[in-house]
Amino acid sequence: MKPLILVSNDDGITAPGIRCLVETMLALGAEVVVVAPDSPQSGMGHAITMNQPLRLQRSQEFGPDVEAYQCSGTPADCVKIAKHHVLKDRRPALVVSGINHGSNASVNVLYSGTMSAAIEAAIEGLPAIGFSLCEYGPGADFSHVGPWVTQICQLALAQGIPPRTALNVNLPRHDPARPIRGLRLARQAHAKWQEAFDERHDPYRRPYYWLIGEFINLDPAADTDEAALAENYVSIVPCRFDLTSYTALDTMSQSWALPLTPPAENGVPPQPVASQDYGLAQ
Amino acid sequence: MKPLILVSNDDGITAPGIRCLVETMLALGAEVVVVAPDSPQSGMGHAITMNQPLRLQRSQEFGPDVEAYQCSGTPADCVKIAKHHVLKDRRPALVVSGINHGSNASVNVLYSGTMSAAIEAAIEGLPAIGFSLCEYGPGADFSHVGPWVTQICQLALAQGIPPRTALNVNLPRHDPARPIRGLRLARQAHAKWQEAFDERHDPYRRPYYWLIGEFINLDPAADTDEAALAENYVSIVPCRFDLTSYTALDTMSQSWALPLTPPAENGVPPQPVASQDYGLAQ
Repeated sequence: MKPLILVSNDDGITAPGIRCLVETMLALGAEVVVVAPDSPQSGMGHAITMNQPLRLQRSQEFGPDVEAYQCSGTPADCVKIAKHHVLKDRRPALVVSGINHGSNASVNVLYSGTMSAAIEAAIEGLPAIGFSLCEYGPGADFSHVGPWVTQICQLALAQGIPPRTALNVNLPRHDPARPIRGLRLARQAHAKWQEAFDERHDPYRRPYYWLIGEFINLDPAADTDEAALAENYVSIVPCRFDLTSYTALDTMSQSWALPLTPPAENGVPPQPVASQDYGLAQ
Repeated sequence: MKPLILVSNDDGITAPGIRCLVETMLALGAEVVVVAPDSPQSGMGHAITMNQPLRLQRSQEFGPDVEAYQCSGTPADCVKIAKHHVLKDRRPALVVSGINHGSNASVNVLYSGTMSAAIEAAIEGLPAIGFSLCEYGPGADFSHVGPWVTQICQLALAQGIPPRTALNVNLPRHDPARPIRGLRLARQAHAKWQEAFDERHDPYRRPYYWLIGEFINLDPAADTDEAALAENYVSIVPCRFDLTSYTALDTMSQSWALPLTPPAENGVPPQPVASQDYGLAQ
């Protein structure tokens, strides 16, 4: 029996990246269902639509053999409506998102609509992978990624993905002089965008601002996704959606002197921590 | 010298929740700068605006003594433009976001614009807290939260917040018969939304869908944010923005048999993992 694979993305259903992903999944021998945004949703993070209804329309984008839908919502919305309305009792063996036009390595994962679709699937208990190519723009060259995407999906179907985990896969850009060297597991690099706002004025002399920025990798270690990509490996970061910092919990239970579990009941309700004067007005 | 506190939110600059937060920060003796969305941004997750410019306008919402701006972007955009354009060399002692109208405990943190503002500040290296009240709607009652918000901000200013961490604070709703019992550090509960889509038809007989859902706590332990709130404690979860699952990295380095660091160089380029037949077409 063919494994059922759900495909989504954040660049929209007409983007070359999702076409590459759908064709790779078909070549893998999968039954493919696509639910993808009807317009580009880059930078949407884990947004969901609550104050407006969603539209969902059958799409012929991938021909008569692929059950495809375009949705007016975000990538997370697409996975939700796919799971609860389109697929219902059909459980996908794998959910794949992408292939994003542009890197989602390092902190970019936080802003990524591609990864929010994968994380939403993981919350639903489904094995999920977000794929991104480190080349931005509608003309990005996906000709080299097929075998790598295939290999990762085969490993995921055969070996599984740990529970409550979505994989963040980033693929080096195509360079015939520098072929991809392999797959590498990695952790998320600590990096940031050194940002600025470009101030311009409209024809009515009112200011408006464009976000511009430069990516700064603050993490020189060899085990990060940025290091893997720099050495021309495909990076694979397993991502969780429990944001709790257990290290910070330990630190703060000392420094803030607050309980982690309820105090023993003795008939007297626990009192708030005494208000202290930290040099501020009370 | 008064500490500088930056205030943002996701319900928009006119929401009662941000008014309560601004007034609490003023009562604390802080110099307050507000940069908040000009319209409600609930459920925006960590969205940022890249394909459109942003508008930023001086606002008199909090009177002449508070430097306030309304911005056309998302909560994460507000923190970025506050840091890099409004404040520039003025470094806030604390960034606070909220008070959200509705809980951001458990997995809700992932969809939360309130927390995305706090996490964006943490990425920028600033101590940050997102506050949410477990009461939804514009008529939410914030009359009881002042002392608790004050106490948490005083602790944050005095004891600090661990680096690369933003606090997710959720406050029980007002119930005069059941006063809040104290502050409690907690971890993010494992929970999910049991979701459905309500299908309706527009006057032109085309279908549209409303997301509806029921919150299911899958985590009976006593040390979660949901448990703290159920016992009428204020929950404080330290959140990180490194999404790497180190447990899954360990598991997968065995089960997937992939390297975590670059293989030793010996003149032979590393080979891709041998393609295997997992019962799928090659």
